[in-house]
Amino acid sequence: MPLARISIKKGRSADYRKAIGDGIYDALRETFNVPENDRFILLHQHDDDEFDCDPGYMGIRRSENLVVIQIAVSNTRGIEQKKALYAAIVQRLAASPGIRPEDVFINLVEVQKENWSFGLGLAQYA
Amino acid sequence: MPLARISIKKGRSADYRKAIGDGIYDALRETFNVPENDRFILLHQHDDDEFDCDPGYMGIRRSENLVVIQIAVSNTRGIEQKKALYAAIVQRLAASPGIRPEDVFINLVEVQKENWSFGLGLAQYA
Amino acid sequence: MPLARISIKKGRSADYRKAIGDGIYDALRETFNVPENDRFILLHQHDDDEFDCDPGYMGIRRSENLVVIQIAVSNTRGIEQKKALYAAIVQRLAASPGIRPEDVFINLVEVQKENWSFGLGLAQYA
Repeated sequence: MPLARISIKKGRSADYRKAIGDGIYDALRETFNVPENDRFILLHQHDDDEFDCDPGYMGIRRSENLVVIQIAVSNTRGIEQKKALYAAIVQRLAASPGIRPEDVFINLVEVQKENWSFGLGLAQYA
Repeated sequence: MPLARISIKKGRSADYRKAIGDGIYDALRETFNVPENDRFILLHQHDDDEFDCDPGYMGIRRSENLVVIQIAVSNTRGIEQKKALYAAIVQRLAASPGIRPEDVFINLVEVQKENWSFGLGLAQYA
Repeated sequence: MPLARISIKKGRSADYRKAIGDGIYDALRETFNVPENDRFILLHQHDDDEFDCDPGYMGIRRSENLVVIQIAVSNTRGIEQKKALYAAIVQRLAASPGIRPEDVFINLVEVQKENWSFGLGLAQYA
């Protein structure tokens, strides 16, 4: 049920981009108990000047490889699960495609379970 | 007041794309009592590998024509209205441009009424 | 911590586009007490038919220069602060790059403070 929207700068390879989606999906599976194949990931590739993100906020040194991840999820997880998700995404993306932990920005947008339709016009989780 | 963000794969015609917006608008009018001309719809067209959505989750057979619709709305509707919206969108998009019910994914993001400004720097619904 | 997503039509200059980000950032600093350098802004440029926004809803005359701004923020501000933000964004964008107040559409999406990770896999605000 998560719907993930990823923003990166243009110029990364198809393998690199796919690995980002794989890592997010695996991390959601591991920490948020997301069912198998519940994978809905959209990627937006930006020109440099469309990607206006600070390189040093909070003392974190971000590079050209910053990945901004916004994930809509149901509001059923607590703080510890969210922390586990952030750590798992960073760990996965470091392993492949090799993204520095400083370069992973995550924002969760929580919604009610009834706010999803996976097809057929039904509210499958309501 | 809804702000709809649609994601599809590249390659559909202008008429096809317009019909998606028309169907969403008409369904919002019909089921969410959205005022006439309250239409704010953004479309994102993705390359194949930017559109990473499972073709079978929950046993629903999705095709290349999957439409992912994320709509920000005020938090004033109950479950029955949401179900009616999902059904209405699917029905409209099946009629035109002819999208299979399996190929319509919807996510609602609810916000407070004061979270909108339609112009002029005012909070028109607050 | 705000994550701003801006949508405009294609064809504006780089300076024009940068000024929109500057104005939003400055307005957030001024009215939402956002820390210095807490700037994360993504821009999406749309073809005409990807940008399907009503030119007259609520009696506001919108032009080709409409800017649609969706900002994810923590849920710590009241109505007065939100009104101040809307007014400040409109004022800033009117000053530079010279956008009419009618052409600024804003939607806030509120999330919990624990819903952010600014890097390193940590929930810095939790």
